[in-house]
Amino acid sequence: MAEYNAPLKDMKLTLNHVARMTELAQKPGFEDASADMVDAILEEAARVARDVVAPTNREGDEQGVQLKDGQVVCPESFKHVYQQYAEGGWGSLQFDPEYGGQGLPFLLSIPVMEMWHSANMSWGLCPMLSQGAVECLDLNGSDELKAKFLPQLVSGEWCGTMNLTESNAGSDLSVVRAKAEPEGDHYRISGEKIFITWGDHEMAENIIHLVLARLPDAPPGVRGISLFLVPKYLVNDDGSLGERNSANALSLEHKLGIHASPTCVMGFDNAVGYLVGEPNRGLACMFTMMNNARLSVGLQGVSISERAYQQALEYAFDRIQGPAVGTKEAGPIIRHADVRRMLMTMKTLTEAGRGIAYDACGSLDFALKADNDEAKSAEQARAALLTPIVKGWCTEVAQEVTSLGVQIHGGMGFVEETGAAQHYRDARILPIYEGTNGIQALDLVGRKTLMDKGAALSALVEEMKADIASVDPSLTAQAKALEEAVIGLDKAREQLLQGAEADQVMPGAVAYSFMMLSGYVCGGWELLRQASAAVRLAAEGDDDPYLQAKQESARFYMAQVLPRWKAFAETLNDGSQSIMALPEEQFSSAWQ
Amino acid sequence: MAEYNAPLKDMKLTLNHVARMTELAQKPGFEDASADMVDAILEEAARVARDVVAPTNREGDEQGVQLKDGQVVCPESFKHVYQQYAEGGWGSLQFDPEYGGQGLPFLLSIPVMEMWHSANMSWGLCPMLSQGAVECLDLNGSDELKAKFLPQLVSGEWCGTMNLTESNAGSDLSVVRAKAEPEGDHYRISGEKIFITWGDHEMAENIIHLVLARLPDAPPGVRGISLFLVPKYLVNDDGSLGERNSANALSLEHKLGIHASPTCVMGFDNAVGYLVGEPNRGLACMFTMMNNARLSVGLQGVSISERAYQQALEYAFDRIQGPAVGTKEAGPIIRHADVRRMLMTMKTLTEAGRGIAYDACGSLDFALKADNDEAKSAEQARAALLTPIVKGWCTEVAQEVTSLGVQIHGGMGFVEETGAAQHYRDARILPIYEGTNGIQALDLVGRKTLMDKGAALSALVEEMKADIASVDPSLTAQAKALEEAVIGLDKAREQLLQGAEADQVMPGAVAYSFMMLSGYVCGGWELLRQASAAVRLAAEGDDDPYLQAKQESARFYMAQVLPRWKAFAETLNDGSQSIMALPEEQFSSAWQ
Repeated sequence: MAEYNAPLKDMKLTLNHVARMTELAQKPGFEDASADMVDAILEEAARVARDVVAPTNREGDEQGVQLKDGQVVCPESFKHVYQQYAEGGWGSLQFDPEYGGQGLPFLLSIPVMEMWHSANMSWGLCPMLSQGAVECLDLNGSDELKAKFLPQLVSGEWCGTMNLTESNAGSDLSVVRAKAEPEGDHYRISGEKIFITWGDHEMAENIIHLVLARLPDAPPGVRGISLFLVPKYLVNDDGSLGERNSANALSLEHKLGIHASPTCVMGFDNAVGYLVGEPNRGLACMFTMMNNARLSVGLQGVSISERAYQQALEYAFDRIQGPAVGTKEAGPIIRHADVRRMLMTMKTLTEAGRGIAYDACGSLDFALKADNDEAKSAEQARAALLTPIVKGWCTEVAQEVTSLGVQIHGGMGFVEETGAAQHYRDARILPIYEGTNGIQALDLVGRKTLMDKGAALSALVEEMKADIASVDPSLTAQAKALEEAVIGLDKAREQLLQGAEADQVMPGAVAYSFMMLSGYVCGGWELLRQASAAVRLAAEGDDDPYLQAKQESARFYMAQVLPRWKAFAETLNDGSQSIMALPEEQFSSAWQ
Repeated sequence: MAEYNAPLKDMKLTLNHVARMTELAQKPGFEDASADMVDAILEEAARVARDVVAPTNREGDEQGVQLKDGQVVCPESFKHVYQQYAEGGWGSLQFDPEYGGQGLPFLLSIPVMEMWHSANMSWGLCPMLSQGAVECLDLNGSDELKAKFLPQLVSGEWCGTMNLTESNAGSDLSVVRAKAEPEGDHYRISGEKIFITWGDHEMAENIIHLVLARLPDAPPGVRGISLFLVPKYLVNDDGSLGERNSANALSLEHKLGIHASPTCVMGFDNAVGYLVGEPNRGLACMFTMMNNARLSVGLQGVSISERAYQQALEYAFDRIQGPAVGTKEAGPIIRHADVRRMLMTMKTLTEAGRGIAYDACGSLDFALKADNDEAKSAEQARAALLTPIVKGWCTEVAQEVTSLGVQIHGGMGFVEETGAAQHYRDARILPIYEGTNGIQALDLVGRKTLMDKGAALSALVEEMKADIASVDPSLTAQAKALEEAVIGLDKAREQLLQGAEADQVMPGAVAYSFMMLSGYVCGGWELLRQASAAVRLAAEGDDDPYLQAKQESARFYMAQVLPRWKAFAETLNDGSQSIMALPEEQFSSAWQ
């Protein structure tokens, strides 16, 4: 077996029957996204992921990255992988044809990106950040800046990065200190940024840094931050590369995981930069990029879960131990019920996450192509609501899935050569970067629920109820279990709205539980939709065993995973009370 | 703040008011375990753990271990730590005075061992394995073997190891292949063992390996395995060390965590060994040692959780970010409700685990000192029932606690230098070694529940109900929440007994959920007992804020953690159905 095989059947079913790809292909401008074209793109991406990218994953983890003479050196094989990626046009699928993009739906880029991250998450971060830079520049940059920098970013000839965090400014960006001084048609940027993913490397000829910094006399706080484009090499008017800008990797972090992804401390020392968007509006510009990045990180949770599942499954077939109940001979451990439980948990959490992630991304395309304002804002609100759930829930469950992957391997899982531990280590960054999951939870309860008085969530609950009401009789038991959970989520929404009025600390205190509750319910819903599609397709004569397996996924999830909603829902009854009751100084009273 | 401070107040309260230490001190032979003596021992251990052991933890992780010229080399500082440990007599607390032990309760050694593992889990494994070897030899060895090997093992002059696993014999020991050939008064042992913790080192002069192997013509399966003592250096009749035995570390594993604990592949090449216990009864001998080892591993879960909590707490006070709700100024992140939630979860899971672990260990002492057979077998059954819960649940929650420790640090948590990631990596071995948690769950449902028709579990449930019925009015709400969960556990017991009759696969399928359900309920019960003691002590005039904090722990746990019992209980309704429904070949149907 190959190290990684894209789960094409699940990707296609989810694209077409959950995320509405076929419907999207009928929108003006998306005519190229025909079923045949989608299939061809996914199959070719699967080949590249399997044959080119996936084999570099262990090697990347083992070799890691170094800083040599001020230049980041990444694993040998990565340059070849990146070249194949750029030459294949994989980075340009969803972008504007005016700048060399292929004009395909954003949604179509999602399973493709899922594959890169399953194949090699460390490497996949580089194109992911570049795509974020393209989005940001496309939306906020002047025509001049776009003409000068976008085509090479879209083609993959150059890469992009995102420079937000400073040592004292993590979740709280209001205290960013990097400075920008005007000088002619550009600015001079100075300051130090930390945790800059792929901040430097030699896979591409140039790197375009997007950097948050303050103009002279900018107001304090988030309303005084501007966004600048700072190229590693200056670009001449004819498009050729000019002199080296003073934007340098000063050091690399020694991290728990994603060893092959350089996490740089970046130093900008009077570096030439160009303003992107309006002065003091940098955070808003960055946010357009961050929303998609959050979806991408949630998707990484799905990716790493899928990879961990495939590896654990192979081991469960290979590893022979004593006889399972009802058998007399020693056999593969997949025959043991507890191993089966772990594999089914991994499988169904991954499929549920895929459902939510693709669905959310589809809404962004539908918002773009909406016929009227109402449809547009409904799709936008839907995507905005689902974004923190995708980022938060899919990355939380990735911790469980990759941990189960280690567990199925037994003692071998703890040995690095096996590779299961790498997925576990790599996955651990996901709940942290692009806004910690605590921040996602606050976003979900605050901006996405309290701010619209629960309207978007109510609309989602109505969608769920409609799907439950129209379910095929063969899925009645699953629909019934889900219905109870949906009612629970709706009650939690009310509790949140009421609780927030009485106690301003309550929303933040219950936020994490609310996010996890939402995630488990959405996951069950997406699995029910996938299973419903499987029932339909089977009824139409498709006898692929995958369609039966999908129905078993839904059955397992509703019986074995979905019940967790009750635990999260019940904690809401307590509001902020027991969470905030202990005075700060008493946390250490057992030893003081 | 020091890197680690033993939570002495919680240890003492748990010892005295949960694990019945004061009662135990009145048993004949335990007169030395007076309250003053217990306090003095714990305080001195706390000092050694804080000043001597804990400072070596990061250094050990960074330096790791090497195999040089056939000899394992461990971090420089460890030899000094071990010397202090041996000279302090810390390894002999609970052992037979006939062999140099101090004859104190086993229970008293538990908080002491908790401290070593909090301070440095990699290092702590060495004395832990040695104590297991002492127990095994003491119970099963001939007088001659004991006289020759026990005094130096008890004093800590020599260390001991446990050699069970082979590459094809992990969870299933029936296929052990190592051989033992008789030769005069000894045997010649040959074979290869893997995953041997501290299989070689130079902290002590000699290492006593306990090795499972087969005698010639031994029956196949577990009834043909015998136990042998194989010293690293042969021991002359006068007790001096003789020639080097052919028991060697062949290689070291490159592991996810516990980098400073050498995990050896051990080669025995015609090595001189001595039979321990009866021929073909090796597994039974090993099990006496394994039961205590399982308790010790559960305790390690508590230890690493405590260490992760203390580190995260310090960071939560140090790290300044934006203002929390209701405040205007930036302040330490502990003021944010979601950080508070994480810290309280870490704190209360740790305290609950401490309660169960100490309580189970206390029962072993009470069994030893029981006045009559009925009391003896009741305490034995109680300890036996709690053992897989301690091992399974305390190590599962350690995954969550150490992960929260990383999360509270944000991006810094993913950077190795911070140290939070080390606890997370180290903790990951706990659900695997000494019998995976899948094995623990099977032990709990099979040997510990189905085999006695649920009697021991019923007795435990009755204990819980009695504590709930007599609770102080100030804890009524907590007791009520717990009562519902206890009823749920009792119902699950009935479901298990009935389900097992109808479906032989059912017990294994529900085992993990049953174990986690039991753990969450037991954890709540132990916290209620701790809180009840705190209420009593406060009523008696003790105004230590710790007593108030303990009550808040119980309040938080019942409202925010205990509700998880419902999710686990509900999965039992499904039995083995959805877990076993998917045919083996369909697990990969999404890509095949």
